[in-house]
Amino acid sequence: MKKSLEREMPPRVLVAIGGNATHPEDIAGTPDEQWKIANTTAQTLLPLLLLDNELVITHGNGPVVGKILMRMALTRDRIPAMTMDICVAHSQAGIAYLLVQAMENALRESGSPRHVVCLLTQVEVDPKDPSFENPIKPVGPFFSKQDAAEIARELGWTMKEDSGRGWRYTVPSPKPLHICDISLIQALAQRGTVVIAGGGGGIPVIRGPKGVRHGINAVIDKDLSSALMANVLGIEVLVILTSVSNVAINFGRPDQRDLHRLGLAELRRYQQEGHFVAGSMGPKVEAAIRFLELGGKRAIIGRLEEGLEVITGQAGTHIVDNAD
Amino acid sequence: MKKSLEREMPPRVLVAIGGNATHPEDIAGTPDEQWKIANTTAQTLLPLLLLDNELVITHGNGPVVGKILMRMALTRDRIPAMTMDICVAHSQAGIAYLLVQAMENALRESGSPRHVVCLLTQVEVDPKDPSFENPIKPVGPFFSKQDAAEIARELGWTMKEDSGRGWRYTVPSPKPLHICDISLIQALAQRGTVVIAGGGGGIPVIRGPKGVRHGINAVIDKDLSSALMANVLGIEVLVILTSVSNVAINFGRPDQRDLHRLGLAELRRYQQEGHFVAGSMGPKVEAAIRFLELGGKRAIIGRLEEGLEVITGQAGTHIVDNAD
Repeated sequence: MKKSLEREMPPRVLVAIGGNATHPEDIAGTPDEQWKIANTTAQTLLPLLLLDNELVITHGNGPVVGKILMRMALTRDRIPAMTMDICVAHSQAGIAYLLVQAMENALRESGSPRHVVCLLTQVEVDPKDPSFENPIKPVGPFFSKQDAAEIARELGWTMKEDSGRGWRYTVPSPKPLHICDISLIQALAQRGTVVIAGGGGGIPVIRGPKGVRHGINAVIDKDLSSALMANVLGIEVLVILTSVSNVAINFGRPDQRDLHRLGLAELRRYQQEGHFVAGSMGPKVEAAIRFLELGGKRAIIGRLEEGLEVITGQAGTHIVDNAD
Repeated sequence: MKKSLEREMPPRVLVAIGGNATHPEDIAGTPDEQWKIANTTAQTLLPLLLLDNELVITHGNGPVVGKILMRMALTRDRIPAMTMDICVAHSQAGIAYLLVQAMENALRESGSPRHVVCLLTQVEVDPKDPSFENPIKPVGPFFSKQDAAEIARELGWTMKEDSGRGWRYTVPSPKPLHICDISLIQALAQRGTVVIAGGGGGIPVIRGPKGVRHGINAVIDKDLSSALMANVLGIEVLVILTSVSNVAINFGRPDQRDLHRLGLAELRRYQQEGHFVAGSMGPKVEAAIRFLELGGKRAIIGRLEEGLEVITGQAGTHIVDNAD
């Protein structure tokens, strides 16, 4: 296995894993449950961790930051609620701690001394990004209309009704412009450390005069941040691991067709035809396209549990700059 | 100022700042309040940040992790509560995000491109540490006897009555044995990055066979972790910045005497005479003693707001291996 992986893997890889790598949406999320899932994720990725490749890992934070925000809202009468940027910071650490420990434990059990480390990551966005005019990204729990009104008044959160299920905190989702401290991610990755960074798309900040930064209430798409990070690091392969096996066209219809291997032009055409849902496969496809447009060699989208098969080409959707 | 600082400062320094560097005990702790204090802390330390010295910064987390734990307890019927190790991870990121941004902003305003970065830090303790037999470190909020009993039953927290003011979650405070990933702290510090690490004394973990780690419910004293980190990194000067100006003997009595400059032997004698209160100046003095015993050149304890004067010898208590 290791020999064949070594032949197939490029020297530098960025793997973006979903929030489901520690906390799927459909569990209560006790610490025991989350450790079990983090350990499974670590086992899935272990063959990759055991290689000498430069490896950067990013991750989503959906369910975890949702619970952090819910705790903030529910206890706001007794404890001042923190803002979105601070909540994202909390989620980066909570999730990365599980992943670091689970991955290092898997490495130690295999006799490897390789380090896994988490770098808190701020990501700059443009304060004039059009998304600030129209927040559409719902985060965290559903509230009743009355609770939502109180929360809006007390915490200043923009609350919007979401698909008939209740009211949710709804924030802008601006495009990532700059991954802060990316030279440190590179320095650690180059010395052989597995670097976990950019969690939840990064702590959202805007840059003012002289490069001074300030946090902002927003959520940055983690796949778009991952693509940007991979491009700036000059990484050849971007792997996006999620909860479905393949990118599909005509998704959910009788004529649904899973995509296995295609070129950038073909994927762009499907995107323009509207095959990929916003907030779901849409941003992953967009991230893959941008990554390839800016010099990436191969973008792969597949199922987390099939991580190794996805990376080695036996599963998942593989997109290359020119179909070959 | 810079020239004279350059002459006086050793090439490598570890500064341990208290939880009050972002969140004193006596404020509600809104984000605005915490940013203001973090910015003040950054301004205090700016002359030091502007030097080319290798600089590692550790910090306490008392009020912040207390509030994180309180949110966990108050919402436990709706959201599974996280364990202490995960709460410490959240607090490391929440506090370090404020410090990183405040310090980098202060540097940028001064025209410096220096990076400040946070490394999540696990710290190993001995599962046979005697403190596990007798938890005595209270953390977080006070609860009524009845609430405490419910929390103990539902979350498994050890609740103890604290000085007549109510019941608190009370955890072991084992000695730090090993700072995990310290080679990465060193690698980043050596390339000129200011490294924030070991927050709240570190995420408490124990080590099993093959080096596998697991989190544990405990709080590690941040000054003892800081001393250990400084020793392992071979740092000459340990600066502990807190809320009082000097170490004092006969503290709070008419014959109280502030200490300004003394040798290790003299400090040890005062310690044995019982001058330093457990949970307050006690651990700071203990940290200073251990640091000097294991090769440190100078330990300094002083007030955060006088940080620069403390570091340059115009304020604070300075302890050297041999009084000179």
